[in-house]
Amino acid sequence: MADAIKYLLDESRLPREWYNIVADLPRPPEPVLHPGTLQAIGPADLEPLFPMALIAQEVATERMIEIPEPVREVYRQWRPSPLYRARRLERALDTPAKIYYKYEGVSPAGSHKPNTAVAQAFYNKEAGVRRLTTETGAGQWGSALAFAGALFGLEVRVYMVRVSFEQKPYRNALMEAWGAQCVASPSEETNAGRQILAAHPNSPGSLGIAISEAVEVAAQHADTKYALGSVLNHVLLHQTVIGEEAIAQLEMAGDYPDIIVGCTGGGSNFAGIAFPFIGAGLRGGPKPRVIACEPSACPSLTRGRYAYDFGDTGHLTPLVKMHTLGSTFVPPGFHAGGLRYHGMAPLVSLLQELGLIESRAYTQSSCFEAGIEFARSEGVLPAPEANHAVRGAIEEALRCKSEGVSRTILFNLCGHGHFDMQAYIDFQAGKLEDRAYDEGELNAAFDSLPKVAAE
Amino acid sequence: MADAIKYLLDESRLPREWYNIVADLPRPPEPVLHPGTLQAIGPADLEPLFPMALIAQEVATERMIEIPEPVREVYRQWRPSPLYRARRLERALDTPAKIYYKYEGVSPAGSHKPNTAVAQAFYNKEAGVRRLTTETGAGQWGSALAFAGALFGLEVRVYMVRVSFEQKPYRNALMEAWGAQCVASPSEETNAGRQILAAHPNSPGSLGIAISEAVEVAAQHADTKYALGSVLNHVLLHQTVIGEEAIAQLEMAGDYPDIIVGCTGGGSNFAGIAFPFIGAGLRGGPKPRVIACEPSACPSLTRGRYAYDFGDTGHLTPLVKMHTLGSTFVPPGFHAGGLRYHGMAPLVSLLQELGLIESRAYTQSSCFEAGIEFARSEGVLPAPEANHAVRGAIEEALRCKSEGVSRTILFNLCGHGHFDMQAYIDFQAGKLEDRAYDEGELNAAFDSLPKVAAE
Repeated sequence: MADAIKYLLDESRLPREWYNIVADLPRPPEPVLHPGTLQAIGPADLEPLFPMALIAQEVATERMIEIPEPVREVYRQWRPSPLYRARRLERALDTPAKIYYKYEGVSPAGSHKPNTAVAQAFYNKEAGVRRLTTETGAGQWGSALAFAGALFGLEVRVYMVRVSFEQKPYRNALMEAWGAQCVASPSEETNAGRQILAAHPNSPGSLGIAISEAVEVAAQHADTKYALGSVLNHVLLHQTVIGEEAIAQLEMAGDYPDIIVGCTGGGSNFAGIAFPFIGAGLRGGPKPRVIACEPSACPSLTRGRYAYDFGDTGHLTPLVKMHTLGSTFVPPGFHAGGLRYHGMAPLVSLLQELGLIESRAYTQSSCFEAGIEFARSEGVLPAPEANHAVRGAIEEALRCKSEGVSRTILFNLCGHGHFDMQAYIDFQAGKLEDRAYDEGELNAAFDSLPKVAAE
Repeated sequence: MADAIKYLLDESRLPREWYNIVADLPRPPEPVLHPGTLQAIGPADLEPLFPMALIAQEVATERMIEIPEPVREVYRQWRPSPLYRARRLERALDTPAKIYYKYEGVSPAGSHKPNTAVAQAFYNKEAGVRRLTTETGAGQWGSALAFAGALFGLEVRVYMVRVSFEQKPYRNALMEAWGAQCVASPSEETNAGRQILAAHPNSPGSLGIAISEAVEVAAQHADTKYALGSVLNHVLLHQTVIGEEAIAQLEMAGDYPDIIVGCTGGGSNFAGIAFPFIGAGLRGGPKPRVIACEPSACPSLTRGRYAYDFGDTGHLTPLVKMHTLGSTFVPPGFHAGGLRYHGMAPLVSLLQELGLIESRAYTQSSCFEAGIEFARSEGVLPAPEANHAVRGAIEEALRCKSEGVSRTILFNLCGHGHFDMQAYIDFQAGKLEDRAYDEGELNAAFDSLPKVAAE
């Protein structure tokens, strides 16, 4: 009998509550500021954009928050997701380390994003909302919201970064198969879009611009709300089912991680796998090292300032305190479109400030190399974003080998790469460039950070 | 508490044996004939192409055949695969029918094909084979063998129908990510390919041609064997894990199918879901109706002759008795490339002759319509091949509605459509044509059937 490679939880052990790390932090998160007054805002100020149930989660301080049964019913289609022991990768690396990965690519949209999309669609439907707007970069988040919208009978309008819209027609087709409408951003539909197009008719778009468009449309229509796929507290909250399940699955395996690795763009899949373990450590349990892996071309955690900043280019969103490269920063092109965001989730940023997590930046070619090694040993082709976590996990496993130490490594494989094959074609053809960001542009973006009296 | 939608078997209930329907049939399959002499051949004649363990399975008569532990270890990565109750689809159709589907898209290659690819790679590795050759149409089989080759350390060379090779660069990239080499067929590498190219320099290729190329290379190299993804008895045998699991999962649900639906190209996924149920019926159990759904543009079961024919265009393969449109028949273009084959598995063909299964042909546009309805209710976007089974299941569910009868329908969702998005783009744009085959060409193909004395 071979050793187990898969740890599946019985459906009866699907988590009943999300975990809110705010309850265990030594200090509370910084307040959110109004984009006009730069003063702290209250829940009511967010009502044009979000239903009250989500706003309440955004500011919640209790440790556990119930997952509504209709959300759990949809989760059950693919959750609890499998935890794997990567024995074939361990053998290929010849490492004494034990490598586990949680696989979120089993969702119908192929990533962790439905964990929050389903919850957000549910609460909006409950609040009588008819339509959701959102932005998407690589398309994972837009696909997830399109899926969730189809299940709950909500219209979904997705503003997709134009360069991705043009490079990835298949993502667009997937969203349309689920009945959503996908629009290239910047578009002529919004003031934010028209302003950009007037100044830059050939603008390739950015997540910051697409957010401005989606927020503008939601704010102007009473039957429409906005949905964000990362960064915000309630989004990270919904992702904690990942880590909660992983704790139970590692218990089945008789193991506990020494090291936890995740990739970070806005921070939600990283938070999902890591927060329940970090929280257990804050409450007196073991304290694994936790490593956030980001692209070196968009290094918000390793190079960003910890400062108040806007979430979008048009400065329509509230300000949050986070690691940021500045809302005017435009990262060079690379394939992990889901990681091309100037900021980082405020909660992840705060954890780094508190010394509870480490961060590292990797070039995309080193990440694709890791992804191919993973595919050939474990059989799953990761998304370009997930390759950053694979890269981090392999680095730690090789460190174990050189130090002659066995450690237990857990990483989150947040999605598959089926919609990113052009990136793999480019990599195999030796055409992937590791383009560095421009130092001058980064400094200019830092200079453009808003001056906030509170800091 | 909502009703269950997912039925997952514990890993301890992963089948230990494949089911061989030959043991339960009222008469044995017809013998295989030598392509030169047209006389019955013995196991030794197949040795240039297959390892002895697979040849033994091809002619086996015992009911149960053990699944080797290394194969089960790989299976465990995604098996037992989930069985779902399609409650949201039932509601959308407003049908009294209960619809269940077995989902094989959870494998790393995204279809049922790894069930046999892993087994074939294992037996070839055991026999000291260094390299496998194969053909692929849409790319699902080539991907599956590339995946299996990577895990067992075998080189894999895939001859891919040229028109698919050009239309689906992402399938090629997936195979290469797993380390396989993919070649457009007809190629200059083989006599079979060169002959076709000499006569038709712009030949779009066909499965029959690609099989000839792969067989030729395997026959000429002692360290190389050939692997086929459907049609043969041992391939169908390996797929029976699908139906074996489904029986146990429906038992969990307290249910048994009245109707079983599968799509058919070569017949392997259909056999996989249906044979264990048909066998139970032959041994005195309940006898569900079993419906094979095929494309109306390549209707081997509904229009083909039951006759001896070659498996390939170059007439290098042995002859088998099957439903065939003639090995010279070239179906018009349509998107379910995995169903574009002139023949049908001999065992599936025999079952139709014995009156144990029904068959139906559907246009591709009616199948894509069904696929979109499925995606919007159940959340999974099916492969174009699988859409034929979805179409058949919906038709039966609507019949239940019009008759006011509740029946239990089980179908096999054999793969996801992530690598078929261009087909969905064409469908959504109203660009899908339902091209009929040419009656004159079909009659000419029938006339070209070999004259076999045994018939």
